Amino acid sequence: MSLPTRTQVAIIGAGPAGLLLGQLLHRAGIDAVILEQRSPDYVLSRIRAGVIEQTTADQLAQAGVAERMHREGLIHHGFSLCVDGQRQRIDLSERTGGQSVIVYGQTEITRDLMAARAATGLPTVYEASNVTPLDFDSPHPRVRFEKDGQTHELACDIIAGCDGFHGVCRASVPATAIQQYEKVYPFGWLGVLADVPPVDDELIYVRHARGFALCSMRSRTRSRYYLQCSLADSPDAWSDDAFWAELRRRLDPQAAAALVTGPSIEKSIAPLRSFVAEPLRFGRLFLAGDAAHIVPPTGAKGLNLAASDVGYLFEAIAGFARSGQEDELAHYSTRALARIWKAERFSWWFTSLMHRFNGEAVGFDEKMQDAELAYLMNSDAAQTVLAENYVGLGL
Amino acid sequence: MSLPTRTQVAIIGAGPAGLLLGQLLHRAGIDAVILEQRSPDYVLSRIRAGVIEQTTADQLAQAGVAERMHREGLIHHGFSLCVDGQRQRIDLSERTGGQSVIVYGQTEITRDLMAARAATGLPTVYEASNVTPLDFDSPHPRVRFEKDGQTHELACDIIAGCDGFHGVCRASVPATAIQQYEKVYPFGWLGVLADVPPVDDELIYVRHARGFALCSMRSRTRSRYYLQCSLADSPDAWSDDAFWAELRRRLDPQAAAALVTGPSIEKSIAPLRSFVAEPLRFGRLFLAGDAAHIVPPTGAKGLNLAASDVGYLFEAIAGFARSGQEDELAHYSTRALARIWKAERFSWWFTSLMHRFNGEAVGFDEKMQDAELAYLMNSDAAQTVLAENYVGLGL
Repeated sequence: MSLPTRTQVAIIGAGPAGLLLGQLLHRAGIDAVILEQRSPDYVLSRIRAGVIEQTTADQLAQAGVAERMHREGLIHHGFSLCVDGQRQRIDLSERTGGQSVIVYGQTEITRDLMAARAATGLPTVYEASNVTPLDFDSPHPRVRFEKDGQTHELACDIIAGCDGFHGVCRASVPATAIQQYEKVYPFGWLGVLADVPPVDDELIYVRHARGFALCSMRSRTRSRYYLQCSLADSPDAWSDDAFWAELRRRLDPQAAAALVTGPSIEKSIAPLRSFVAEPLRFGRLFLAGDAAHIVPPTGAKGLNLAASDVGYLFEAIAGFARSGQEDELAHYSTRALARIWKAERFSWWFTSLMHRFNGEAVGFDEKMQDAELAYLMNSDAAQTVLAENYVGLGL
Repeated sequence: MSLPTRTQVAIIGAGPAGLLLGQLLHRAGIDAVILEQRSPDYVLSRIRAGVIEQTTADQLAQAGVAERMHREGLIHHGFSLCVDGQRQRIDLSERTGGQSVIVYGQTEITRDLMAARAATGLPTVYEASNVTPLDFDSPHPRVRFEKDGQTHELACDIIAGCDGFHGVCRASVPATAIQQYEKVYPFGWLGVLADVPPVDDELIYVRHARGFALCSMRSRTRSRYYLQCSLADSPDAWSDDAFWAELRRRLDPQAAAALVTGPSIEKSIAPLRSFVAEPLRFGRLFLAGDAAHIVPPTGAKGLNLAASDVGYLFEAIAGFARSGQEDELAHYSTRALARIWKAERFSWWFTSLMHRFNGEAVGFDEKMQDAELAYLMNSDAAQTVLAENYVGLGL
């Protein structure tokens, strides 16, 4: 296959951020090439949460890839908090003037975006190695990469760094030009995927003296459950039986009785991290999605933030492509970061509220969690704060 | 003077908590003696904040000591947040269905309570030394104390420990019977009292890169200002000029221009602490107010919590006095602590949000403060949460 040597936008990374940006650009008549280090199967094997905000759903619709999501996704008008065995529903729709979220796996979104890109015949170079963004401090950036043992160069106007937390784009920026903020949490999430019906029609976020748990789902027949665990744990050390027994212990009696268990089809431990890089623009290089920020998974903001980044970046690039005016590109970083920091705050707050930080020891900080949860369970205003952040703040 | 040897309720401590309890008991026909280690002048020399919640005002009215407060106190329907030089008003009344607070110094409340007690001729023993609560694990507690070199004993049914954080009552409880939770903040408040008109009609809570500040008042002609300072600072090292210059630097331009300065009539540094003891009942000994809990001063919950403790304790004692049933006393600790923890949470949150914890260094935690403040400035729900806590949660 002959590889393109020139495009308007070189997108590095074919995860949901890069693919969504490619699709939006295509529909606006702007040329883009996507370079991805991994294979399509590898990209699809990454399992992530899937709680889709309305603004994200709107962007997927704008990109022409929302049809299956709207057909197969589950609309959730609320979720539950379960605190020390007492469950209470948070009514998202009532608290936010009718808003809701869609439960639909990130893997499925990636699959839909891949299919849409394949259908248009647009160029995506998978298994491109040693991808290197070059000259992005000039109006003529390039991306060098290797494919099948050959070195290639792709000339472009703009490089979009959608290559994730460990990607090359952020790493290519001079250290003096970037500020990085990070918080690492002292625990992990042990996740199990199983083909069993979910314990409830909606998600249950669980705070228990033994640690956080989350009852989530991918569909009406596939459940995703998580337990707060030690970072020293290994998934192999957790038998399925041990997982289900521990989950049941953290649930309220009704949910514990209703829990349907079965063999796990995936079991893994993920660390929790908050991370933000500032700014997001370096000349003609732009960072979006996990390349720019990581949220802990509590509240499921990762994909939604990636989508809003891409929305802002698309608008900037489209304005620049129309007018040729550099200043169309100037506002992306500030606009995206304003929303990123608010979602980072929410994810940090929700994580801090729901997890145990000192095992079963109870000190002042744990009493503050108890007090905040007791207040939250009884305050319309506090539930509205939770709900409006959960469904997603405006763009 | 001959000292009483028997009463229904021995109140230890003649601060606002003890005096208010004495007044409520008196009006219910229940006998009480107040024992106080210090002199009346010493008690009145303690300077504390004075932002009175409606429920506290109602209790003062119930005790018959609200007349001067309602005449001289200032009703505030809102306050301002000033964040990095931008001021925004929080409309308490609009956000809470018409509630407000009364600005009236704690010293004035103490004075009013002292005058009311003096007018009734009820026994208060000032400058009582070596006060010791005894036998409170039996139905016949006693308080031993010395006065003018003589040892006395006061037999009673109930001992009310209203003797503050450093008092003898909490210290008399066996260590195994009490849990104590504490957080000490790594900064202090440098406070100045001055006979100058307040910079604004309402309070201004200031968050600035150089630290927190608060513009408060005692009256239309007496201002109370605070600066976050190092605990290593000494008030003597701060000239009046230096104080005013630093305060002006932290305010928004309009407030900085409007600030009227003058000689300080009091200048001191207070540490900030969160503290709660659990439970609040030990047989016939009950803790209330600062003896049981301390809040950092941000949000001015200290006196209000003391008043709500006293309200619950008065109800318990009155029920017991009426019926002779011990179980009337059983609920005080749980009821009082539910409200205490919520106020502790609010005071901790507001303190954590508004102060600088790492000097001018900006890390993830400071970015969380920025994000929370940006969210707060733009969310009706978040402002309602702040307002409903500020005016005081229900009893």
